[in-house]
Order: sequence, then structure tokens, then C-alpha cells
Amino acid sequence: MSAPVEAVLIEERDARGVVTLTLNRPAAFNALSEEMLAALQSAIDRVAADGGARVVVLAARGKAFCAGHNLKEMIAQPQLAYYQKLFAQCSRMMLSLQKLPVPVIARVQGPATAAGCQLVAQCDPAVAAEDASFAVSGVNFGLFCSTPSVPLLRNVPAKHAMEMLLTGDFITAAEARGRGLVNRVAAQDALDAEVASLVDSLLAKPRVALAMGKELFYRQREMGLEAAYQLAGQTMAANMMDGCALEGVRAFTEKRKPDWSAPAA
Amino acid sequence: MSAPVEAVLIEERDARGVVTLTLNRPAAFNALSEEMLAALQSAIDRVAADGGARVVVLAARGKAFCAGHNLKEMIAQPQLAYYQKLFAQCSRMMLSLQKLPVPVIARVQGPATAAGCQLVAQCDPAVAAEDASFAVSGVNFGLFCSTPSVPLLRNVPAKHAMEMLLTGDFITAAEARGRGLVNRVAAQDALDAEVASLVDSLLAKPRVALAMGKELFYRQREMGLEAAYQLAGQTMAANMMDGCALEGVRAFTEKRKPDWSAPAA
Amino acid sequence: MSAPVEAVLIEERDARGVVTLTLNRPAAFNALSEEMLAALQSAIDRVAADGGARVVVLAARGKAFCAGHNLKEMIAQPQLAYYQKLFAQCSRMMLSLQKLPVPVIARVQGPATAAGCQLVAQCDPAVAAEDASFAVSGVNFGLFCSTPSVPLLRNVPAKHAMEMLLTGDFITAAEARGRGLVNRVAAQDALDAEVASLVDSLLAKPRVALAMGKELFYRQREMGLEAAYQLAGQTMAANMMDGCALEGVRAFTEKRKPDWSAPAA
Repeated sequence: MSAPVEAVLIEERDARGVVTLTLNRPAAFNALSEEMLAALQSAIDRVAADGGARVVVLAARGKAFCAGHNLKEMIAQPQLAYYQKLFAQCSRMMLSLQKLPVPVIARVQGPATAAGCQLVAQCDPAVAAEDASFAVSGVNFGLFCSTPSVPLLRNVPAKHAMEMLLTGDFITAAEARGRGLVNRVAAQDALDAEVASLVDSLLAKPRVALAMGKELFYRQREMGLEAAYQLAGQTMAANMMDGCALEGVRAFTEKRKPDWSAPAA
Repeated sequence: MSAPVEAVLIEERDARGVVTLTLNRPAAFNALSEEMLAALQSAIDRVAADGGARVVVLAARGKAFCAGHNLKEMIAQPQLAYYQKLFAQCSRMMLSLQKLPVPVIARVQGPATAAGCQLVAQCDPAVAAEDASFAVSGVNFGLFCSTPSVPLLRNVPAKHAMEMLLTGDFITAAEARGRGLVNRVAAQDALDAEVASLVDSLLAKPRVALAMGKELFYRQREMGLEAAYQLAGQTMAANMMDGCALEGVRAFTEKRKPDWSAPAA
Repeated sequence: MSAPVEAVLIEERDARGVVTLTLNRPAAFNALSEEMLAALQSAIDRVAADGGARVVVLAARGKAFCAGHNLKEMIAQPQLAYYQKLFAQCSRMMLSLQKLPVPVIARVQGPATAAGCQLVAQCDPAVAAEDASFAVSGVNFGLFCSTPSVPLLRNVPAKHAMEMLLTGDFITAAEARGRGLVNRVAAQDALDAEVASLVDSLLAKPRVALAMGKELFYRQREMGLEAAYQLAGQTMAANMMDGCALEGVRAFTEKRKPDWSAPAA
């Protein structure tokens, strides 16, 4: 009898609603195999349905964060229909991260390449270890990182994004921060503390405010200025009518801490 | 008889056409009360109708630049229709700054929070004192800064904007400059000189060129590349036919200073 | 008999497919005269039709990279129709750079002003000498750099772009790099080596991957996120079916170098 196979993705959820998803194929550099993509999609769908979830941390075990698609799988089925299905599956998962009503934090402890770099770009904030590194390196074997370019270009200045895509070269965590690909950089042994401090900050805010705000943020980005202001104004008015904001604003004007355990309606 | 109440907004206009609008409720951290919003809208409308206006400086008295909406007013009328009207009023004022035919410079001498940070983001260039600071902090009392996110995301890289919105944390003036939220940072006692040097630079250009350029800049931003080039080409051709540009280009080729007091037609 | 006039644009193409286009009116600061614009358009059209071309380097002789439009020509024909035609001609050339199926590298050895700065912004990556400088300075003679603002705003953060356009001030090569206008900065005597290293990196990638990727990059930039992902997924699937990518991925999984001289179909 063979040994039990470890799950490709480790899901943990604490009592506060912090969901940690850990890519768990370190020997394969946590490549996004079909199995890994399906596991991520299922886990994300569960978070979307979990009204008590508050924040997702996307992490990885081993030396690499994620090496992108599983090339052995890809080369085994050299058919257009297969590739179309594969990239659609991957894009759907990436879009699901953006659609989640809770923030998704990337915790990047090593190299993030191709679709692995895309995963970082697609998260909301990203925290990286000092020796993490980033590349959209598909072009090195003749496959331009077209899908990774979608969130990359929405985070990194155009000429820097283009250079990364054309050359496939790695950039350091410090460079990634300077170019907007990650928010914070910490020493490897301080990475968890940095992520925890960001998580704690998000847990101190009402869930509904973050949910309304995250959705609005990405929707208004695709609008002209006037339409963006209209939608944002409607969102803020609705947010204000929520019990949490009413209690929060009242508490602020009364110079006390808000009591969000039983929000005033 | 009660003492006369000072105006919420001080309007000054010098002979050169430099309009300085100074938020004047330092004890209330220059919050954007309904009265303040109405005063700003009126002042902006006057600038729009003033053919001799050349540049607007948006400044503030006291330790804070602007603390955003007036929370006591907001909590006093917990009705959806009121909030919709309030945010529409505020957004209209913000859009009016962009529609002005003259550049608007933010002069930021202290904390700019929530809609106060939005005000900075919505100006054309911004100059800040070294100890100014910036936050979109509504989320701390449960109100995500949705309307501030509109100009913020159009100035600051997406992940940095998102982190500010999710955490409500302050960034320094130096960080704001690095992220594109302000253009220049000066010591507090050099702030006026820095603003004046920018004002002088703008006064040395013909009004019509700045008006055509500012309008084009924001319109083409919302277009695809080809449409943007078409509109920009039409704008430049029209600009060239203006007497100021004809005289300016002629003077340049003749190695003399342009005489814009009586532009050649 | 008069001496032969040197070509306004020097075209060179080596056996590897590296096309170098060198602006060759140093005494006129390589201004974009009608003749220069026409020569650039012809050369770009030849590259577009040259299936063996791999990369374009856009360079210039003399102390300046390019001073923008030829002002003496412009002032000689003060007619709206002439200016409309001129800016349409220039915009068409700029768009043609983006439409080329090969990357275009700007090699900037001196000042790049107005439409010269636009040329740098419109290239894919840009490499600059330490003492290169950049300005959109038309506003100094009353002509706001409207067409240059189109690629500038798509590369440089909005407030920094606006300040450059309003003031006409120069920024240094280091500042240009920090703001995303150029990718790499080198000492003047190391500029060619820096460009050559970038060229070599691009030559090591299959032509078809760069062509598909460049087109996708600029097309998806103008789309919403979901449409962008759909197009990018289709592009990547098509790219994967190309012989080069199949061989490249196979070689990678077999830990050998790809043989792209006769790609497997």
C-alpha cells in the first residue's frame, strides 16, 4: 500500500476567520498543475461562501513560492483545445481571487515565476521575504507570459512590465516593491510577523466595509472618472447606512472605541 | 451681539490671477462640512468664470490640511438619501477642480485624511511640507474611503493604493512623493517658496495653452491609444493656430523672448 | 556641384535581424522635420515587412537625441490644415512603432524634448545615458505637448506627467528611470554595451513569442480585466501551439537547450 499523498493545497482557518491557503508541492516548486488549480478554485469558492471568513493568506511551502504552470503536463497534451481550457481554468481562478469579498494577501517566501508571479500580482496586497524574486520567464522557453501580463500591467509601470516580459529576467524583492508588485519586504524570519501585522490590521475593520470597498476599487478602475465617482458615492452612502459605520462614526465623534460586536442599526 | 464668524474659506486673488483658496476651520481640522463644500464649489465656479484667473492654490490654515468629511454632521442625519446627496455634492466639487481651465496646486502643510487626501489626489500638482502626512482612514471607523479611492487609484500604484485603503495607515510626505501622490516636498518654512516657484513657472506660460492641455490630458486618459492620438493631434493643431503659440514658436526660432502682451494672430 | 547630402535617417540591419535606425541631423538636434518623419515611417514600414527583423534600436547622432518638431517648418505654414496633417503624420509614425511585431528599444544619448521625449515614451524599453535628459517643453513657447502626453501618461505616474507638461522642466535620466520613462541608465561610454546586452537577451527568444506577446500587451491594456484575461488566454494557447514553444517547453522539461533552428511542429 502506498503512503498517503499529502494534499496539494493545505487549507487552514482559524477562529478569527483567517484562511491560510498553502501551496504544498515544494518538490515541484508548487507548480500550478491542473490538480493545484482545481484545489485553489475549490478553496476560493469555499471562502466566497463562508460568511465568517475575514482574510485569505496565500502562502507556499519550500524554497519556491510558485513556478507557474506544470510544464510536464502541458507538453503531454499538445492540443489547442487543451491549452485553451487550461488557461481559461487558470484565469478563472485568478479572477476569483479578485472577486472574493475579503482581502487576499500574498506571502512570498521564494521565487515567483510566470503564473506564480501572476498570482502575486493578482492578490490585493503582497508581502515578500527579502530573498524572494520575481520573473515572468515563459519567454525563455518561447512562451510569452500573456496571462501574467494582465495583472502585471495593472500593478507595475508599463516599461518595467514590458522589460520583464521581454527578457524573462528576475527582479529582487526590493525592486518588486519599488515597482509596485509587492507592498512590504521583510527578512525571511520576520515574514510571518509582517503578514500577521497586516492581518491584524484588517481584522480590526468591519468585514462589510472591506467587502464593499474591495469590490468598488476594482470596478471603478475600469470606469471613466465621472462614472467612477457616481458608483463610489453610491457605495459610500450604502456603506454609511450599515450598522458598523454608523456605530464607528458615532464612536469616533464620542471619542470612544466602536463596539462592533452588536452594531447599531 | 456675537462676534463675526470668520469665513470657512478665505479667497484671495492677486493682480496676476493667482487665486488662493484657504480652508479656514483649523479647530475642526478643516473638515469638509456642507458649508465648506458649498464654499469651495462657489469659489471654484467663480474661478471657472474668471477669464483672468491663471492658477489656483488650494491651502489650509492650522495644523491639519483637511480631515475629510464632518463626522458630526454625518452622524446627525443617518439617512441614505442624505448620504447620497452629500457624496454627490463632494464628488461634484472634486470633478469641478479637474474641469477648471487653470491648474490647481495643492499646498499641503499637515495631515490630509480621507476626503482630505482625496482633495490632494484630485489636484493637478501637489506640494507638501516634510511633515505632512496622508491617509485614507475612513476604514478605521468602518467607512471604506470609496470616493477617495477614485483619484487615489489614478495617481498611486494599485497595490499601494489598496494597502492604504485597507489599513487606513498614514504615509509620510516622502512616501507620498515616491508613490506619485505629491510632486514636491519642502521643509515647512520653505513650503511657500516651493509653491511660489511652481506658480511662477505656470504664470510664464500662456493661459490658453495650459487650458487646452489640461483638458486634453484628462480626456485622453480615458481613451484608447489611437483615439487619444487623434484628439491630441486636433488639440495641438488648434493650440498652434492660437496667437500665443505662433508668436512663441516664431520668437523661439528668432532666438528672442516671446511677446505675449499682444499676441500675433 | 554640391556635396552629397547625408541621409536624415541611417538604416542598418545586421545578419541577426537587428535594425538600427539613427536620426542623423545632429546640427538640427535631430528634429522631426517632415522629411525625418517620412524617413522614419518608411523605415518602420520596411521593418514591418521584413520577416527576418528581430529588434529595432532607435538611436541618434550628436549631442541631442531629438528636439521634437522642426519649428522653422511649422512657423512657415501657419494653417490649421497643415498642422492637422503634420500631427497626424507624426502620430501615425508613433503608432507604427507600437504596431511593429518586434520590440523597439530607444537608445537615448542626450536631451529628448517634446516629440523627442514622446518618441522615447512610445518605444518598448528605453535605455539612457546618465547625462540624457527629458522634457515636454512645448509649453515654454505656448504649445502644450498634447500628443507627447499620450504615451507619457501611459508610462509615467499622472502627477509627475502633469508637472512635466505644465512646467516644461527637464528631468534627469535617473529621475526618468524612477518615474518609468526609461528602463536602464548607463554611463555614456557603457550605453552601447547596455543596449547590446538587452538586444542579445531579445535575440535569444523566438521571434513569434515576442510578436504575439507585444501585440497582446498593448491590446489588453485597453480592456477590462475579464476581457483582457480572455484574449490573453487565447493568445497563450496559440503561442503554445507554435513549434518554438513546444520545443522550448519540451527542452526545459528534458533539461536541455531548445533547438529553435528547426522547431518541432
